[in-house]
Amino acid sequence: MSFESLRTKLARDGVLQVMAAHSPLSARLAEEAGFDAVWASGFELSALYGLADVSLLSMTQHLDMVRAMAGQCQLPIVADIDTGYGNAVNVDHVVREYERAGASAIVMEDKTFPKVTSLLADARQDLTRIEEFQGKIAAALAARRSPDVLIIARTEALIAGLGQEEALRRCHAYAEAGADMLLVHSKSRNSEEIESLVAAWDGARPIVIVPTAYPELTAERIAELRKIKMVIYGNHAIRASIAAMQRVFATIIAERGIASADREIASVAEVFRLQRMGAIKDLEERFLR
Amino acid sequence: MSFESLRTKLARDGVLQVMAAHSPLSARLAEEAGFDAVWASGFELSALYGLADVSLLSMTQHLDMVRAMAGQCQLPIVADIDTGYGNAVNVDHVVREYERAGASAIVMEDKTFPKVTSLLADARQDLTRIEEFQGKIAAALAARRSPDVLIIARTEALIAGLGQEEALRRCHAYAEAGADMLLVHSKSRNSEEIESLVAAWDGARPIVIVPTAYPELTAERIAELRKIKMVIYGNHAIRASIAAMQRVFATIIAERGIASADREIASVAEVFRLQRMGAIKDLEERFLR
Amino acid sequence: MSFESLRTKLARDGVLQVMAAHSPLSARLAEEAGFDAVWASGFELSALYGLADVSLLSMTQHLDMVRAMAGQCQLPIVADIDTGYGNAVNVDHVVREYERAGASAIVMEDKTFPKVTSLLADARQDLTRIEEFQGKIAAALAARRSPDVLIIARTEALIAGLGQEEALRRCHAYAEAGADMLLVHSKSRNSEEIESLVAAWDGARPIVIVPTAYPELTAERIAELRKIKMVIYGNHAIRASIAAMQRVFATIIAERGIASADREIASVAEVFRLQRMGAIKDLEERFLR
Amino acid sequence: MSFESLRTKLARDGVLQVMAAHSPLSARLAEEAGFDAVWASGFELSALYGLADVSLLSMTQHLDMVRAMAGQCQLPIVADIDTGYGNAVNVDHVVREYERAGASAIVMEDKTFPKVTSLLADARQDLTRIEEFQGKIAAALAARRSPDVLIIARTEALIAGLGQEEALRRCHAYAEAGADMLLVHSKSRNSEEIESLVAAWDGARPIVIVPTAYPELTAERIAELRKIKMVIYGNHAIRASIAAMQRVFATIIAERGIASADREIASVAEVFRLQRMGAIKDLEERFLR
Repeated sequence: MSFESLRTKLARDGVLQVMAAHSPLSARLAEEAGFDAVWASGFELSALYGLADVSLLSMTQHLDMVRAMAGQCQLPIVADIDTGYGNAVNVDHVVREYERAGASAIVMEDKTFPKVTSLLADARQDLTRIEEFQGKIAAALAARRSPDVLIIARTEALIAGLGQEEALRRCHAYAEAGADMLLVHSKSRNSEEIESLVAAWDGARPIVIVPTAYPELTAERIAELRKIKMVIYGNHAIRASIAAMQRVFATIIAERGIASADREIASVAEVFRLQRMGAIKDLEERFLR
Repeated sequence: MSFESLRTKLARDGVLQVMAAHSPLSARLAEEAGFDAVWASGFELSALYGLADVSLLSMTQHLDMVRAMAGQCQLPIVADIDTGYGNAVNVDHVVREYERAGASAIVMEDKTFPKVTSLLADARQDLTRIEEFQGKIAAALAARRSPDVLIIARTEALIAGLGQEEALRRCHAYAEAGADMLLVHSKSRNSEEIESLVAAWDGARPIVIVPTAYPELTAERIAELRKIKMVIYGNHAIRASIAAMQRVFATIIAERGIASADREIASVAEVFRLQRMGAIKDLEERFLR
Repeated sequence: MSFESLRTKLARDGVLQVMAAHSPLSARLAEEAGFDAVWASGFELSALYGLADVSLLSMTQHLDMVRAMAGQCQLPIVADIDTGYGNAVNVDHVVREYERAGASAIVMEDKTFPKVTSLLADARQDLTRIEEFQGKIAAALAARRSPDVLIIARTEALIAGLGQEEALRRCHAYAEAGADMLLVHSKSRNSEEIESLVAAWDGARPIVIVPTAYPELTAERIAELRKIKMVIYGNHAIRASIAAMQRVFATIIAERGIASADREIASVAEVFRLQRMGAIKDLEERFLR
Repeated sequence: MSFESLRTKLARDGVLQVMAAHSPLSARLAEEAGFDAVWASGFELSALYGLADVSLLSMTQHLDMVRAMAGQCQLPIVADIDTGYGNAVNVDHVVREYERAGASAIVMEDKTFPKVTSLLADARQDLTRIEEFQGKIAAALAARRSPDVLIIARTEALIAGLGQEEALRRCHAYAEAGADMLLVHSKSRNSEEIESLVAAWDGARPIVIVPTAYPELTAERIAELRKIKMVIYGNHAIRASIAAMQRVFATIIAERGIASADREIASVAEVFRLQRMGAIKDLEERFLR
């Protein structure tokens, strides 16, 4: 919970590597692996709950998980608040609650509520009017108590098929409204779309990307593009978990037993370590009388 | 949510294979893999929250997850209520809440509150007096509304190092109090301890085992032992997830990118399938106007 | 939790009297007082949480309270789901969750999300298109598992100042979409507006009213109007509580002590009775050993 | 949330007057009335949920309400954590969570878990061993991050009928373990028991009392006793609410209408004020575009 502020990290480091998480456990694993921050992903948490990422998960469900993560990991948390759970009035409430829960940055996207997940083919993707979204950004800025909490505006203009010009127009408008950073999402299967946008961006605010759809983009190329300061790996924690559970479950069913499975999964001792059983034993020694 | 009762399954099938889960997602994966039921594990959920399994997770946190699982998977749910969150009065409250949440079976263990996780070496393991635990079983039976909800008494006598005689004495006492099944836990590194106990068991109630510590025990051997009707794979979902996230996170950090990781994890399309995006699209077509 | 269905009550009784509640305690008091059902009011629960009734309270917060009420009172619960927490896809999810939580009826209103509370003067009040709201009603009907769960469509046409003709048009459209009952809200300071509407209503579905703004309307007059089958007293539990706490708190501050206050509030013994301490003592006697 | 620390208030003021609350609304009313702090009462919240105060309410349910109160009222919050939800290991977890939620002081009592409510006649009242409770106090002190969070040890020695000598012995032991203040509870029908104890107290730590059972004790007399620095009015918010709802509900049922009730309860406008509708309108004007 006590950590170097994300703002400080941003000022110093090249490009922050941010890993998605859906639980304190996955956040802690991201910390141990060496990531710079945790992406408290709505997509991952929706998936954990078996729900589609179409504004079914409630703010409380997401907020509770953000708070639990903040209590169990030292990395800054970048909270995904989708569309802000309503209009600018809701945003005021939401930002206060996420800051209290321990979020270091808040990402809000310019789709209408209820949203549809971004990477789905042939889905409706409706954007909020620019002025309306500027109002939501302004409300977020006014609601934060610490200026260390970053307000990141996310445009879905490329996702909605509106093209680079509209995306840039929105980036400028959101920067003008005060957004600290600009996340531009793309579902193009290669990185040309995003590279072109970044090359054309002449504003002062740094860009955030989520390269799920174009995984081949390298760190070297991102560094060359200069204006990108944060890369969010948006769903790889839950996707890793799913594949592993499918494999292990299939093995157990096939063998009607756990002998083989036991050898390819984390040991019970490793789970104890992650649960900090050592600290528990220490507490027992110090305080159980 | 509508499902064949666990009691019916037990009457028909040989030995039920029950997989641990910590979320609706893992419960759904267990269902797809072909398990007979889901073990709503306190150990797994504690680990998901980054907490040691020593009665830190609250009943509300566990109950909320049981309810979420019951809403998103068709398998019966075997709920792990640890020591029952208090005395027989608490058990009355707890059983009512778990039944309302959709649990098909409830497992209660005979340790004192707060408990210490069972497989930890050199840990204190204190048991409740037999008479007191019989009272808790009686309270659970009186609290359930449907007789289809199974009350499973779990003895930690072997875990506490009290030996087979004490374990059998407790099994008889708990059966006498009305328990539907008896879970006997063992942390012995081979299956001799549990096999010996099962061979010596002359009561009418079936036995449940959790072979985490002795994974080499085969289904064939379990079938030969005859009296075992349920095998719970107690923590393999979270252990699979941990190992996978560690591997994938390390790869991403090493490469400073997701190109390799992308090929070994579930696809985004597979996540959409598990989130039932197809059903969402169907709802949109039928009802969005 | 086991209760006569609301549908059965409606078939038999004249006009159901439904009291607002914001907690299991207030629901239980409504039951003891003799009301026919409980209105799980969003306005009351928002107020309990210190929040304005403008879609700030999350579905989880409201749903959790509905579930807690259903666990502690025998009356049917009429759940206020505001605008349905999104579009028809959200409604599908929401109705499933409220039915699982124990709601007997669900009231959904035709305002846009986020809503503004209905009785506020000079507030924006935007209505959803009729066709869109028909889709939401159809989604609600398709989502319920038991036909005993009533789907009540609420029109805010009068609240929005659109007049009786629009209100009637919406009532017909919602009845056509399958709504079981039609709630027509009015903030007119006398009952003429609602009486006129009821007189003009020639549909088959019964009307529900919420006479907060026109408290002088008598039961006799309601009976004469014939088509009203349910009267919801929408906020009197929280308003009674507020006035009482203000009075008692002022007395205690003024006297710097509780001697006078003690005489005008419920006794501790009365709280014990409402908490069912008798049942606890009975459980202790039966099961504590 | 920004407030003068309770420690500062204690240093300056005579005797702090602390009012029980069970919700953000009641906390806000306590603030408006002029109390010095809010008692986040387990008894009141149990009653709100229709539950007996016998350790049925989970930590999560209580913690969530403490957090909601802290978000909506400026007064310091004195959190009632009952017996600490377990042993010293649990206390470590619990204190961290309550501090994060915004509590300014934490009261922990020396009964065994599960507890029985203190004022009930003829109830079992079992106390924890002194050494064990000292360990829990030490764990609480070690767990708090800010020394401004007060750890208040509560002894139930008088409640358990163990007499003044045992109560004083426990007060000394708890002070020695580092408790900031000592709450001594009494269910004697007059104040002699507590006055005698306070007169006999020769330790340095100030005393906290809860005069529910002896409401006639005056502020003047408390001031004379010198060593009392905090008076908690432990359940008057919920008791006021209950009496008011019973009266108003009975009136409505008797009249089959709300005409009379409407005149004796808070107006809808007053609820709007407490919900801060004015601030919402201001947000709408500033940020809705």
